[in-house]
Amino acid sequence: MKKLINKPEDVVKESLAGVAAAHADLVKVHFDPNFIVRADAPVQGKVGIVSGGGSGHEPMHGGFVGKGMLDAACPGDVFTSPTPDQMEAATKAVNGGAGVLHIVKNYTGDVMNFEMAAELCQAEGIEVESVVIDDDVAVQDSLYTAGRRGVGTTVLAEKICGAAAERGDDLKTVADICRKVNANGRSMGMALTSCTVPMAGKPTFDIGPDEMEIGIGIHGEPGRERMKIKTAKEIVEMMGEAIVSDLPFKSGDQVIAMVNGMGGTPLIELYLVYNELNQFLKGKGITIARRLVGNYITSLEMAGCSITLLKADDQLLELWDAPVHTPALRWGV
Amino acid sequence: MKKLINKPEDVVKESLAGVAAAHADLVKVHFDPNFIVRADAPVQGKVGIVSGGGSGHEPMHGGFVGKGMLDAACPGDVFTSPTPDQMEAATKAVNGGAGVLHIVKNYTGDVMNFEMAAELCQAEGIEVESVVIDDDVAVQDSLYTAGRRGVGTTVLAEKICGAAAERGDDLKTVADICRKVNANGRSMGMALTSCTVPMAGKPTFDIGPDEMEIGIGIHGEPGRERMKIKTAKEIVEMMGEAIVSDLPFKSGDQVIAMVNGMGGTPLIELYLVYNELNQFLKGKGITIARRLVGNYITSLEMAGCSITLLKADDQLLELWDAPVHTPALRWGV
Repeated sequence: MKKLINKPEDVVKESLAGVAAAHADLVKVHFDPNFIVRADAPVQGKVGIVSGGGSGHEPMHGGFVGKGMLDAACPGDVFTSPTPDQMEAATKAVNGGAGVLHIVKNYTGDVMNFEMAAELCQAEGIEVESVVIDDDVAVQDSLYTAGRRGVGTTVLAEKICGAAAERGDDLKTVADICRKVNANGRSMGMALTSCTVPMAGKPTFDIGPDEMEIGIGIHGEPGRERMKIKTAKEIVEMMGEAIVSDLPFKSGDQVIAMVNGMGGTPLIELYLVYNELNQFLKGKGITIARRLVGNYITSLEMAGCSITLLKADDQLLELWDAPVHTPALRWGV
Repeated sequence: MKKLINKPEDVVKESLAGVAAAHADLVKVHFDPNFIVRADAPVQGKVGIVSGGGSGHEPMHGGFVGKGMLDAACPGDVFTSPTPDQMEAATKAVNGGAGVLHIVKNYTGDVMNFEMAAELCQAEGIEVESVVIDDDVAVQDSLYTAGRRGVGTTVLAEKICGAAAERGDDLKTVADICRKVNANGRSMGMALTSCTVPMAGKPTFDIGPDEMEIGIGIHGEPGRERMKIKTAKEIVEMMGEAIVSDLPFKSGDQVIAMVNGMGGTPLIELYLVYNELNQFLKGKGITIARRLVGNYITSLEMAGCSITLLKADDQLLELWDAPVHTPALRWGV
């Protein structure tokens, strides 16, 4: 197994220690239970936002903790849901009296544990709203999911809801904005190679030297189709058609677009994919108003990419443009 | 070959088109000859800064073009020096009357071509200074280099010199600051896997499933030693000792540290490496005053990392902290 690690069982803990050492100005890391929290939490009178999920998708979610985005993130073991006690402790740590929003990716373990944590917190008088993100158009139901999987739209939801909370929107409003983002966001991914979970020590799935998987999940869950590798243009057209036809996005729409690397794909390829996506959308009369190109929701060292489109009106664009200061996303500060 | 591309010969051009489409607010891309230039170039009265080198190291250098960093970057073909006409055209495009600094990584082709471009520009009345970065402690002379290779310190030099130029320092001062950064910066890299140049279609070098290469170059040039994979702690100690003993860095020093991914290494591992580096340096009495953790000077999809340390006084830290607004590095804006 080719990884820059010590013991496989210490990967998450030691990586979190690195985050704590690198970003002490922005975040604090709490161990046992593990969560990353804004250095200035709880912010009195502000809605708190908590997300979380298995580790191995960095920078999501810990890299998005800070001013204008998440108040806390709960990292589970690699590709493993965090536990209710992590979520409960994080929720309490960020509760500034205005309630807490849980942004939950649609995986059975995440959903169940966040529900349990919400109930525990509500029993102690903390108002909690939960929004489940299920934006992956690839498949209905999956290895760890009933319904659609939650993927790239989560990143956009965390940014946009973080801005709404920061300007003082109340819990119901922030939760409604999160639902609006989920309703208007669609994603799809693909992989050229597998990844290797440290504790497993071998690739999650086998894939031939000339094959790719279209519609892959972020844990290597099967997608729509295994096929011979195609050109970037053909790949973007396949994923783009699946995404655009699903909402559907229409001529005249403006979108926030994310071309996301799965962890092992170089930036030179991601910009090439962005070029194809831009041309594809132009052909549909869809305008990219804002964009992210890079590694934002990864699958360890998997080679591949995903595309996320969010239909954006002036409200969402204004929130997108608001200042953000986290380890992985920063502007206006 | 598992890559998100169309034709191998079009990779650089199509990726540049993606950069142009994604970052039109920050940069313009000029084709034939290829260079990326600040959208507002030339900035009258400001020293211009131009760098460049083979493609495949993204975000370096094109991702560092913008306010407070580079005025232009010349991307060659993958792992191939850009040509003098690219450098000449870029230098002319950024000349605001205060002269132009060339920041050149120490590879024979880069050095020769930047020299030729400087002469051509000087013949037309543009004042040009050149600083060659040669910070890689791994080996003396290499496959494409007489002397030491230029690697991670280049990123720090571009940020710091960009800030000096932005505040109005004159050409001699900016060049002197660049020499000071090079004199106080040291790097070393390692690889777990090879990368594949698109036009070659096969891995640059062979490496066993249980092997790593310590002291690797950013084009896969041989390093110091091929050995069995060790733990992250042992790897950091090997690279750290080589770097620290070279300058040497001493107890009481403060440094800007970069833990850089080679392109195929997930962020969870890079933060784990940062944790080891932080502990290693603490043990030496060396303080990390500022840091970057991520992919900044890559080698396509190579798995591995490099460490760069720059001994930093108040002058360098002030320039480091100054606002920067480029596709890949942004703060204070």
